[in-house]
Amino acid sequence: TKQRHVAVLPGDGIGPEIVEEGVKVMKQAGEQFGYHFQVDFGLIGGSAVDRVQNPLPTETLQICWEADAVLLGAVGGPAWDKNPPELRPEKALLRLRKELGLFANLRPAKLFSGLEQSSTLKAEVLEGVDLLVVRELTGGIYFGEKRREQTERGEKATDTLVYQDYEVERILRRAFEWARNRRKKVTSVDKANVLESSRLWRQVAERVAGEYPDVKLDHMLVDNCAMQIIHRPTDFDVIVTENMFGDILSDEAAILTGSIGLLPSASIGEGNRGLYEPVHGSAPGIAGEGVANPVATILSVAMMFRHSFGDEQAARAIEAAVTCVLNQGARTMDLAAPGDLALSTDQFGDRVIEEL
Amino acid sequence: TKQRHVAVLPGDGIGPEIVEEGVKVMKQAGEQFGYHFQVDFGLIGGSAVDRVQNPLPTETLQICWEADAVLLGAVGGPAWDKNPPELRPEKALLRLRKELGLFANLRPAKLFSGLEQSSTLKAEVLEGVDLLVVRELTGGIYFGEKRREQTERGEKATDTLVYQDYEVERILRRAFEWARNRRKKVTSVDKANVLESSRLWRQVAERVAGEYPDVKLDHMLVDNCAMQIIHRPTDFDVIVTENMFGDILSDEAAILTGSIGLLPSASIGEGNRGLYEPVHGSAPGIAGEGVANPVATILSVAMMFRHSFGDEQAARAIEAAVTCVLNQGARTMDLAAPGDLALSTDQFGDRVIEEL
Ligand SMILES: CC(C)[C@H](C(=O)O)[C@@H](O)C(=O)O
Ligand SMILES: CC(C)[C@H](C(=O)O)[C@@H](O)C(=O)O
Repeated sequence: TKQRHVAVLPGDGIGPEIVEEGVKVMKQAGEQFGYHFQVDFGLIGGSAVDRVQNPLPTETLQICWEADAVLLGAVGGPAWDKNPPELRPEKALLRLRKELGLFANLRPAKLFSGLEQSSTLKAEVLEGVDLLVVRELTGGIYFGEKRREQTERGEKATDTLVYQDYEVERILRRAFEWARNRRKKVTSVDKANVLESSRLWRQVAERVAGEYPDVKLDHMLVDNCAMQIIHRPTDFDVIVTENMFGDILSDEAAILTGSIGLLPSASIGEGNRGLYEPVHGSAPGIAGEGVANPVATILSVAMMFRHSFGDEQAARAIEAAVTCVLNQGARTMDLAAPGDLALSTDQFGDRVIEEL
Repeated sequence: TKQRHVAVLPGDGIGPEIVEEGVKVMKQAGEQFGYHFQVDFGLIGGSAVDRVQNPLPTETLQICWEADAVLLGAVGGPAWDKNPPELRPEKALLRLRKELGLFANLRPAKLFSGLEQSSTLKAEVLEGVDLLVVRELTGGIYFGEKRREQTERGEKATDTLVYQDYEVERILRRAFEWARNRRKKVTSVDKANVLESSRLWRQVAERVAGEYPDVKLDHMLVDNCAMQIIHRPTDFDVIVTENMFGDILSDEAAILTGSIGLLPSASIGEGNRGLYEPVHGSAPGIAGEGVANPVATILSVAMMFRHSFGDEQAARAIEAAVTCVLNQGARTMDLAAPGDLALSTDQFGDRVIEEL
């Protein structure tokens, strides 16, 4: 049996409920595909602030360092919205990504057949949608210097957007590699008509493209891309972009799948270690009610098998099980049409396990 | 008769064609509503770079200063994409907005009945869509310091996002004023969980909201907003946000109307002088063919009457004429369904004039 060490960080809001389903599926798939897991739980986010006054306690960071993969639920909520920056739940996410060197964030958006009616887009527009947003995750304005000053004209706030050549190069290279295994098309998104960092981004993209003559590179301005994702979603294969643009565009792309409750993500770096988390947030409004959609977390577990354990077979098996359950018409609240019977979070998880 | 001085800047690509229709409609409406116009044409953008090596020649700036309103087509195109920053067409737009102090950019997005089928969104989702994006236009990362440096690890590029209290306050106040004349709901969009400038933005929004107890204020994170605009478009009334977020979200909102060829914009400052331009770009690919949609420009002229001349009646008359022509089934190429007969740019303009 293959030994793997997984750090599990449930976090806030619906985090614990969905992560429970993720772990269940992980264990079941592990049994079938010959894994033995050591699972360590860690505190993170607002619940960590409440208990130990630190959104990312040292022990949590420690178990992540020691793990082969990290499964995260979600962090944040209005309870901590007025906290000072250092005591905000989101800070934990940012630090964790940075500390583990997870510079490449993958957010696939693919339509499950049968879910067209859950999207606000017309079914014919969605047909064949299958795109991958590759978001740079440890640079840009999220990590640049921040300042607050008192000036003659009142308060002044500053954020700084910085990119280094090598940061752009490594993420672009990843995007091209992934595109090779897909439809061989990379759309690099920037705002090169205004931003200096985008001009650097575009230069580097052109240079890296030279190494991948089999992959087609297009540049698109971020404002136009925000429109085209909805206007012509099937035109896209791999979208690669900087941190904040990727944040915005990948949430927007969630629309293409019918619910943000369906979108998984993987954050990876140079090695095999990865962080896997749903794209959606902690949804405190529905926490504890058992109505959250566990699909994004379960699909994140599939990505864990694929990217951290190099096990495409197990990944596909999980994805197939989810597809199968959805095809049978099973729905969680976010996807249920009026009149549909919605399954609870753990009922849905159970169904996936049955199908595995 | 009312004397008004209008600067007309056709610009690049389809700019001249669509501006011609805008001016035609402006003159016709002027005749009906008792205006005498002095119209001065100016060079701007790539065509200005080609002729005088300056995207915003001093003479152009001069006629804008002297005008009551500026009508702009569009600037930019691949021909100038590799130009140094100072010789880029877009630079002219940024400078012009700044020099004229046009800090408030209004981008209304409203569905014209009969155009539902041109949108990729389901008709039932679009029903009743009527939102106004208020974008801050002279601050933020567009205008902060930019740098390119050589470091040990290669090139490094920096952009700076700066907001001052007073800049946020004046745009928020405008948003609240406009919301008062609408459905009394303001959604302020930021990324306050990460950016310092967004935290300032949110504070100021809260403070300004205190002066408008009859208007409801919500805060929304930009990633979530990019999703909600498509997911629940009718939930929004006025969206107010900083420069770059507004750029992205207003282009995205174009989807709600079926074509970006329909979206007008007004950029205004402290006085009555305003700049009116379509939201879309210069579309060099279709320039000179007479297939561009002049609606965004014509509706921008309506906004000119409304905001710079304080003439709601003339504005409504133009809007009604456009609605009427669209209701009669007239379409330009971007909106024509396969099989529809598409009108040319100037045929469409003529029809609007007939209906005026
Ligand atoms: C919570 C926040 C800091 C985070 C981000 O913007 O990176 C989230 O929106 C995400 O996309 O993972
Ligand atoms: C051309 C560009 C600088 C401009 C902007 O981003 O402001 C355009 O996209 C717009 O929205 O008016």
